[in-house]
Amino acid sequence: MKRIAIDMDGVMADYDHRMIEEMNQRFNMSLTKKDLLGKHINSLFPELKEEIYQFINTYDFFRYLPVMKDAQETILELSEHYEIMIATAAMEAPGSFAAKYEWLHEHFPFLNSQAFVFCGNKSTVRADYLIDDNLYQLNSFKGEGVLYSAPHNVTIDYPVRMNSWEEVKDLFLSAKPI
Amino acid sequence: MKRIAIDMDGVMADYDHRMIEEMNQRFNMSLTKKDLLGKHINSLFPELKEEIYQFINTYDFFRYLPVMKDAQETILELSEHYEIMIATAAMEAPGSFAAKYEWLHEHFPFLNSQAFVFCGNKSTVRADYLIDDNLYQLNSFKGEGVLYSAPHNVTIDYPVRMNSWEEVKDLFLSAKPI
Repeated sequence: MKRIAIDMDGVMADYDHRMIEEMNQRFNMSLTKKDLLGKHINSLFPELKEEIYQFINTYDFFRYLPVMKDAQETILELSEHYEIMIATAAMEAPGSFAAKYEWLHEHFPFLNSQAFVFCGNKSTVRADYLIDDNLYQLNSFKGEGVLYSAPHNVTIDYPVRMNSWEEVKDLFLSAKPI
Repeated sequence: MKRIAIDMDGVMADYDHRMIEEMNQRFNMSLTKKDLLGKHINSLFPELKEEIYQFINTYDFFRYLPVMKDAQETILELSEHYEIMIATAAMEAPGSFAAKYEWLHEHFPFLNSQAFVFCGNKSTVRADYLIDDNLYQLNSFKGEGVLYSAPHNVTIDYPVRMNSWEEVKDLFLSAKPI
């Protein structure tokens, strides 16, 4: 059985939704996802970098991220045909560890925590495929990469790009994925 | 450069020392490492299993584990010849996440947290070698395994067994390791 590693933020969890909500509330802004097209939040507001990191690197930020549309049913279905592992770059925000673990148990109770990996660089992850929104991680990974579309990566050219979990399902349940 | 994955508990950190200290204090026992030869603590005291898990799965238990003799200098030296990554099975004790992260930063400040992996089953880890005291993890890992001696594993037969960090150093800095 082939193994698919799946990233959390921006792929399973709607990180940007929470980020925008938090930015608008804290700094009285009116950001939308469109403002993040092709950009990272830190490049938009370099002067707020430290403050943003302070509120991101917390239990509360990561514990209540919304689940991405169709992620639950698709991952459940994929788990019948593939070994599913979760590979999330948690080392940059060690304040997120407990929240990420609880979030996975709450929203994906069918996954086995023995297949959760909280890592840094995803070159350390052993899987056949990696679904990730981060080009740096896809390039580090030794296996087949699948770019999951996110506002920040829209301008990136990558061989396999998925725009929804529906598309991911079609890809991996087709006769010959990638 | 070849990559060595290194387990924490029982390899970098003296888990048993802390466990014995805690058992003796909490339950008024007089255990020594000899009592753990060939055994796991849960098989010695099955009636205390739940209570033991409660005190293990905490920040305090993992934050103050002593460092294994010669681990720091050896890993520093190995890091000049190998990529070092840390692979610790933290998912069984999610209460340990923050403590493990801080412990690594305190005692191994020369390591890059991008190469830390908090995992479950080590089949998810991509490295050339794994140094671990746990046979189950060595068997799951896809690479060359090195068993690090611990009281619980003394009766196990394994092709490559190391009894100290001195031996690990000699093995990996020899002309042709494993």
